[in-house]
Formats: sequence, structure tokens, C-alpha cells
Amino acid sequence: MAGPISLGEIASRLGGRVVGDAGVLVEQVASLEHAQGRDIAFFSSARYKAQLTATRAAAVILGPRAEPLTRLPRIVSDNPYAYFARVSQLLNPAGAPQPGVHAAAHVEASARVAASARVDALAVVGAAAEIGERAWIGAGCTIGEAAAVGADSRLHPSVVVYAGCRIGKRAVVHSGAVIGADGFGMALDAGRWLKVPQIGRVLIGDDVEIGANTTIDRGTVDDTVIEDGVKLDNQVQIGHNCRIGAHTAMAGCAGVAGSAQIGRRCTLGGAAVVLGHLSICDDVHVSAATVITRSIRKPGTYTGLYPFEDNASWARNAALLRHLGKKRKKRNG
Amino acid sequence: MAGPISLGEIASRLGGRVVGDAGVLVEQVASLEHAQGRDIAFFSSARYKAQLTATRAAAVILGPRAEPLTRLPRIVSDNPYAYFARVSQLLNPAGAPQPGVHAAAHVEASARVAASARVDALAVVGAAAEIGERAWIGAGCTIGEAAAVGADSRLHPSVVVYAGCRIGKRAVVHSGAVIGADGFGMALDAGRWLKVPQIGRVLIGDDVEIGANTTIDRGTVDDTVIEDGVKLDNQVQIGHNCRIGAHTAMAGCAGVAGSAQIGRRCTLGGAAVVLGHLSICDDVHVSAATVITRSIRKPGTYTGLYPFEDNASWARNAALLRHLGKKRKKRNG
Amino acid sequence: MAGPISLGEIASRLGGRVVGDAGVLVEQVASLEHAQGRDIAFFSSARYKAQLTATRAAAVILGPRAEPLTRLPRIVSDNPYAYFARVSQLLNPAGAPQPGVHAAAHVEASARVAASARVDALAVVGAAAEIGERAWIGAGCTIGEAAAVGADSRLHPSVVVYAGCRIGKRAVVHSGAVIGADGFGMALDAGRWLKVPQIGRVLIGDDVEIGANTTIDRGTVDDTVIEDGVKLDNQVQIGHNCRIGAHTAMAGCAGVAGSAQIGRRCTLGGAAVVLGHLSICDDVHVSAATVITRSIRKPGTYTGLYPFEDNASWARNAALLRHLGKKRKKRNG
Repeated sequence: MAGPISLGEIASRLGGRVVGDAGVLVEQVASLEHAQGRDIAFFSSARYKAQLTATRAAAVILGPRAEPLTRLPRIVSDNPYAYFARVSQLLNPAGAPQPGVHAAAHVEASARVAASARVDALAVVGAAAEIGERAWIGAGCTIGEAAAVGADSRLHPSVVVYAGCRIGKRAVVHSGAVIGADGFGMALDAGRWLKVPQIGRVLIGDDVEIGANTTIDRGTVDDTVIEDGVKLDNQVQIGHNCRIGAHTAMAGCAGVAGSAQIGRRCTLGGAAVVLGHLSICDDVHVSAATVITRSIRKPGTYTGLYPFEDNASWARNAALLRHLGKKRKKRNG
Repeated sequence: MAGPISLGEIASRLGGRVVGDAGVLVEQVASLEHAQGRDIAFFSSARYKAQLTATRAAAVILGPRAEPLTRLPRIVSDNPYAYFARVSQLLNPAGAPQPGVHAAAHVEASARVAASARVDALAVVGAAAEIGERAWIGAGCTIGEAAAVGADSRLHPSVVVYAGCRIGKRAVVHSGAVIGADGFGMALDAGRWLKVPQIGRVLIGDDVEIGANTTIDRGTVDDTVIEDGVKLDNQVQIGHNCRIGAHTAMAGCAGVAGSAQIGRRCTLGGAAVVLGHLSICDDVHVSAATVITRSIRKPGTYTGLYPFEDNASWARNAALLRHLGKKRKKRNG
Repeated sequence: MAGPISLGEIASRLGGRVVGDAGVLVEQVASLEHAQGRDIAFFSSARYKAQLTATRAAAVILGPRAEPLTRLPRIVSDNPYAYFARVSQLLNPAGAPQPGVHAAAHVEASARVAASARVDALAVVGAAAEIGERAWIGAGCTIGEAAAVGADSRLHPSVVVYAGCRIGKRAVVHSGAVIGADGFGMALDAGRWLKVPQIGRVLIGDDVEIGANTTIDRGTVDDTVIEDGVKLDNQVQIGHNCRIGAHTAMAGCAGVAGSAQIGRRCTLGGAAVVLGHLSICDDVHVSAATVITRSIRKPGTYTGLYPFEDNASWARNAALLRHLGKKRKKRNG
């Protein structure tokens, strides 16, 4: 923790308007429900009004309309969640790692590891690989031959980066992520699958976050590209030759099949799927568990989700659904 | 194998009623189809009647109504599958691991590893971490700073437990599982994603099993909680701030989005999804591949699943489904 | 790269018919869009006609009907994608790995590692395990006790093979794959889950490819079987006791629940699910994101997928869908 810090000083650094005692000190963020002592919480949704009333937080971050809902010292911001993020970053600075290559790491002689970088025990850095300034390679990671990890990037333990793949600056990559495995390129030939060598790379821009056990495949011949600021949650799958536009975010278990092109500032809800070779324009939002089966050329929110019901109602409706066609035929016949 | 053991001795230890020669010896469990020699099999569903007739098992476990279906020596139990589980546990005891820290493991000086625990080659145990009595940390695991693994727990190879997370007693955690990666907390700020530091932990109770490549995210500020007896299959994703009630089970590829609260004794079928911030009461059963989009306050079974058909029938019905609204408008218009 | 090689020599090795200058040299494959210099590209779909016109490739592989679409030197093949695969294999030979066990690998004394095999740094090979001729075990892999990896197989970094499991010849297994974790065998006993020991193995045939973070569970008592030539993409889940028939392929995030039997030459699209204990005959194709809920006895293509729409249209239709049953009741009532 970097605190304590007064509300006044927070506002002078991050903007926002203090209401109440600007000298109140805070030293950690907390939820409304569990805040105590010098904790600062945030309020962003009317559904938590009761918690706002009951909170023992020292101070609260909230939006302009919520200002009168509490008498606690507070900071008013037009985007209280983003403000909360900045306050938490202030109180929980990540800091540069202690530099050095652990004695039990294996770094090939031709690899270039910046003096300010850190490589933990049992990590492997391949020939001609590059590890940038202040980058942190966690325990058990494998960085393939001629792969690169940019400055200030952090790879948590057990990440694998295949040969030739490049990760930009300030990345956060969580454990179990696999960057650059072969795309699923198989040609059917007389009933057998013939492997198409996957000789493209994965190129990842700056400020990208990649969740635990997420997989991003290398391209068949061209590269798979993840642009700046993309955020991928856990267990996301990105097929070969995809391009994911800048600042697009995907929630857990989303999947994008090969050669799909996804625009900038898009979002995919959890378990959403985009089929292969499709093109999605900028500013498209795909709801959770929705399967996109054709290209989208107009920004907006798209959904395709079977509504759940109690099992008996579902069974009845699903049977009727399957008979829609037959009923129509009879009616028309 | 711990056998051979007689049916009579099994029944004296586990209950159940022996029919036929109680002196028959068994030494391993097997399927009806492949049993031979001193194997004991179980019968639990009428669909396997032909296999029961043909089996060469030495003995069979079955329910009261199935008792007359075979003349083989048998043990009758009201819950033959659970009985089979106990017999298999008896014949395949897990046993405590041979204690000791492998010379090629890396254990920080401030970590506390019980003398009866085992740490395999190339595992890393961080500063101030605790490994309980008879716990077994597999090859290539990483136990983060100040994390804890309870007594008699087994982590198979390549599990990652992030800093500060706690796993209770008698856990089984399979390879590739990642406990405590950052939740997907991103605040949108002028078209960019701002990371919300994830400072909560993952707290896991006793008797929990976690499947291969399953991921459980740490909380944003409060903790993510997995209560006692929870069983998660492979490739399950649990988002930040979730609470999963005791004895709830989730089949492969299920996903629970952030801040969802799931009750006790629930089941999620394979690939089922629960969206974020929802609350599911105790004793709710979600069918496979069903997406839960609102809170559930009544125990029962819930389903939402598009019925599959041959492709041509599906295409016809899906087109009709999309025109339901338009047809209704015309009819009403 | 193994080139350069002339079109004439390619055709003499792989068949096909050269049109234009057979002496043209190529040395790498590329996409129509990015080809240059001595690159050879392929054309397989009318949607890329403009790219064919504009390409700077030295030569193109295409089908008989596309032959007149370009004046570039070209090879005509009835199956241009498979032909392209063979050309790429020719130009990008995998080659046998440099043999040897890295000083920082841990191989138990009773393991049998072929002299021509390679074991990379920080890999663990358990007691009585077998590593075949020219097999390559990547950094950080764990090969369990008495497990076996066949000749010419390659395990990329951080693969886990549990005790007793067997992988055939010429396998490619990508990082993070877990072979042989316990199946999800839990018997409900008075509100608690009782673990059923999983004592079967995983048996994998020859020429199998397994994607990154894919999981294949060991059998309960019998073995889980993956037949020859099966290709599994990333994040696929195969439950215990399944049998996957020869030359079947599954795209990313597909899931097969326990005890399902899938025939030969089947395909599962991305995120498709097959429920447990079902039987799928040979030559069945399951569309992406489709859930198979009953056995299939007739070859063909099967689909069940909620069509997506803009969110407002979906909401209207989904509400109507849920009222289908009620409407019908009224109409009939």
C-alpha cells in the first residue's frame, strides 16, 4: 500500500470534486459492504443503496446524482468506476520488479534480457529472444526462440510464448496462457487430415491484457494480430490469422474462429463465439453466449440466446419450436 | 491395489447386503463389459442389462430391484453408484505421499512446508507460503507468496496458485488449474480500458476438487469464495467476487461470470453459463449449455437449449423463428 | 526453409499440372495478399478473386475451374488446399530434433528415453516412462510414471501427461494440454459428493494432434480412447471413457461429455457440445455451437443454434418464443 493519502490530494491528482472533509485520509479501497477504518469505497448502481447507507467506509466515490445519498466525505466524478480504478492504482502501485535472472532460470546465451528485467526460477528464455526493460517473466514460463516481450510487461507463472511471437509494452499475461501455438489448419485429403504448417506469428500490441489459460494461435502464413489495448479474459480462444482491433475486450470463454477480423472498441460477452472468416466492424457489442454467424457492418448490440425457463416449460416450447416448420407447411398446404 | 478382500468383509465395512457367496474375493473394480478374474463391477441402469447378463465379473454391486437380474455373487445397496465409489476407494487407496522436498524444487526460506508434505521437482514455493501436513505439490507447480495449501491436499503438476490465495484440506487440483489470476476488472474511460487492481484473494474450503485447466479469479477487493465440498470439472471458469456454495458441482466448460452468488448443492451441466451479479438459490440444477440470465429464487431444474436437428430442418425453423415477431405484427396489424 | 524449388519439381513430387513456366522457383508459401518475391500462394474460393488479380506471388496453386483466372505460373490440382499443405510441408520440413536430454531436465532412472529423442530443460520424465525415437519433449513438460510418448511425437512446452497414459507416433501436442487428469466421477451420497477413483488410462493412437490447453480425461475403470488421425483444436474437453473415432476433428472449445462414443471421420464445429453417454455414428458433422442431446445414427450435418439479431429484435422474438406454449394453449383451449 502506498497510502495514506487525503481526499484533497487524490482530487488534486485525479480530478473530481470533494464534498465534505477533504483532509480525511484513506489508505486502501474496499467494497461498501466490507469497508472499515481508512478504506474508500465506490457507489455506482442504485441496487447498492442499502449498502451505501450502512457502509463504514471513510469515504465514498460516486456520481453527481448520487451525491446527496450519503453524508460521508466523498469524491464526485462523472465516471465513478474509472475514478475508483485510478484511486486503486494509486493505492496499489504495481512497481517495477526487482531485476535479475534467477539462478535456476535457463536463458540461452543469444537471448537479450534487459538489465532491469526479472526472470524467475525455472523460466526458460530461448535463443535470440528479447526481454525488454523492467519486464517480469514469472516462474515456469517458456519464451520461445526469437520471441519478444516488451518493456514493463509482466508474464505470470507458466505462460508459454512460442517461437517468433511478439508481445508489446505494458502487457499483463496470466498463467497458463499460450501465445502462438499452431492454428488448426488441416486439409482433408482422401479422408485423412493433412497438416498445414503454421508459419505465421502472433503480434501483440501495447497495453494488452491476456487472461489465464487463454490461447492465441499463430497465423498460417500471415500473422495473427492483437492491436493495442485489447483485453482478453480467461479461457478465450483466438484462432489463426485473426485481427482483433484496438481496445476491444472479450469476457471469459469467448471464442473467435480463424481468419475473423474484429473491429476496434468491440466487446464480446462471456462465451460469445465469432465464426471464421467473418468481419465485424468497429463498435459492435456481442451479448454473452451469442454466436455470430455472418459479418456485421453496422455498430450496435447483437444477441442470440435461447431464453432459459424451468425445465418443463422449456421442453414444451422447444418441441413447439421444432414443429414450427411443419405447422407452417400444414397451414400453407 | 489393496485387495484381495471378500464380499463379506466389504459389507462389514461399508454396509450393504451380500447375496450369494460372501467369501468370494475381489481385488479391483471394473466395468461390466471388461471385468474378469477378481473384478467387481456395478449395475445401475436398465440400459446395461445385456452387459449384466454377459459379464465375467466375480461379483456385482446393484440396487434392490436389480437383485434378481443376476445369479452372480452380489452386494445390494440402495445407492449402488456411491457404494461402488466406496469399494473403489477401498481397493485403490490414495495413501499419503512419500514426504520430502525434491532437490530440484525451489522453496523460499520463509515458506513453511510441513515435514510430512511432498514437493516435487521444479515446483516453486514462494515466500511465506504454507504447505500443510501430507500435502503433495506436483512437478512444475507454482505456489505464490503467502499462499496456503491445506493438509492432505494434492496439486497435480503445473498448477498455479497466485499470491495470498488459500486452498483447504483434502483438495484435489488438476494440472493447468490457475487459482487467483486477476479478475477481469476494466473500467472504460474515454474509449480506453483502465485496469482495476484485483487485490482480493481466492479462498477455497475443504474437500474441493478442481479440474484440469480450470480458472478461478481473485476478487477485486473482497475475496472470491469456494465453499466446502465444491467439485469443479475441467475448463470451468469462475469470475472474480463469486461465491460458490457448499457441495455445488459444475461439469466441464461451465462458466460463472463475476460477482455471481451460487447456492449450496447446485449443479451446472457442461458448458452452462451464469451471468454476472446474479444470485442462484440453493438446490438449483442448470442443464448443460443453458445460459442463466436472471437470478433464480426457487429450487428446481432450469433449461434453455436450442434443439438440434438435421441442418436443413434447423435452417427452416431458425428462419421462421426470426420472423415470429414480423408475423405477429402482420396478424395484429 | 528448404527451397528454392521449381514448379516442375514440385509437380514431379506431388502431382498436379503446371501451367506456364515450370522453371519458376519458389521458396516459401504466402497468402495472395502478402506474397512477394519467390512466394507461392493458393486460391480456393471465389471470394478472393480480387486478391488473385492483385497478387505479387511468383506462382499460384488453384483448382481446374480457376485455371483461367490468372496468367501467373500455376499448378492446377483437384484439391488446391491439400496441395498447398503438401507444398508448405515440403518448404517447411519439421525435421528431427537435435537429440539429447538437457542437463536441467529430470529423468527418473527407470525411464526409457530413446537415444534419438530430445528432452528440453525443466521437463520431468517419471519412473518407467517411455520416450520413443526422435520424440521431442518440450520445456516444462511432465510425463507421468509409466506413461509413453511414441516415436516422432512432439510435445510443446508445458504439456502434462498423467501416469500410465499413452500417446502414439507422430503426435503433435500443444502447450498446456493435459492428458489423463481424473474424469469427473462423483457419486452423490446423502448430499455430499463421493469421489470415484479414476483408474482407467488415456490411450491415444498415431498421427493425433492436440491443441493448446485441451484436456482429455482418463477413464473411470476402462480407458478413454482417441483413435488414429484425430485432430483436436485448442481448449477442447474430452470426458472420461469417451471413444473418439479415427480421423475425427474438433474445432476450438468443443466439448464431449463422459462416456460418449463418437464415430470416424466426424467433425465438431467450434464450441459444439456432445452430452454424455451418447453415440454418434461415423461421418456426422456437428455445426459450431450446437449441442447434441441424443444419439445420432445417420450420417449428415446437424445444427441447433439460436440465430442472432440486433438486440431489440432478439428480445422481441425471445419473448414470443417463451410464449409459444401459452399461445398454443389458448388457441386450442
